[in-house]
Amino acid sequence: MIQLDFNKTGGLIPAIAQDHATGEILMLAYMNQKAFDATLSSGKATYYSRSRQTLWIKGETSGNVQLVKEIRLDCDNDTVLLKVEQVGGAACHTGHRSCFFKKIEHGAIRVIGEPVFDTKEVYQK
Amino acid sequence: MIQLDFNKTGGLIPAIAQDHATGEILMLAYMNQKAFDATLSSGKATYYSRSRQTLWIKGETSGNVQLVKEIRLDCDNDTVLLKVEQVGGAACHTGHRSCFFKKIEHGAIRVIGEPVFDTKEVYQK
Repeated sequence: MIQLDFNKTGGLIPAIAQDHATGEILMLAYMNQKAFDATLSSGKATYYSRSRQTLWIKGETSGNVQLVKEIRLDCDNDTVLLKVEQVGGAACHTGHRSCFFKKIEHGAIRVIGEPVFDTKEVYQK
Repeated sequence: MIQLDFNKTGGLIPAIAQDHATGEILMLAYMNQKAFDATLSSGKATYYSRSRQTLWIKGETSGNVQLVKEIRLDCDNDTVLLKVEQVGGAACHTGHRSCFFKKIEHGAIRVIGEPVFDTKEVYQK
């Protein structure tokens, strides 16, 4: 049994998703124990959605699941690092490859890169 | 003025430090507005220490400061990504290059790599 430390952040710890091949950081989300266990057993990145207050298999809606290639923990067991293969090429709900597409330059935000997919097509009702 | 969203996590947001040259993730710590502003103005990664409840210039004690090369924000402005040059080669207080030196293999934790520095020498009283 792997003991994670959920005490410092009220039951949730941050989990970073990094592209296993390029090293690019794709997104950061949160996990509770169930999300961590589900990730471990299924091999698909599973987070806890703070807004929906439920487990969230990343890519459930869009099809852009994250296949987990490696899991790392930090020194004090309160952050998870997932090295993943990002199916569909984009991790962000905006259609960008990475959620970190805003670069700070001279005190202002500049958007880096173009969306990989059209959010209207992927999240159609 | 760059508006970060501190509401969802009670005044603190996670900040990831990534080696700007290799893409290796070095650590994750937390920032409040003051820590973010200090990072922006000083060019040195400055976090908020949850245990000491004060601003924390990374490397203040060890000398292993992080020189900020680039700052990114995520899609909803509640996570910071710092691309840094890690002075001294090690980000972790254990002496490891990265805090993420624990790999999960077959349901158990395996330590990856050796410490870069001797913590007794660096943090001597």
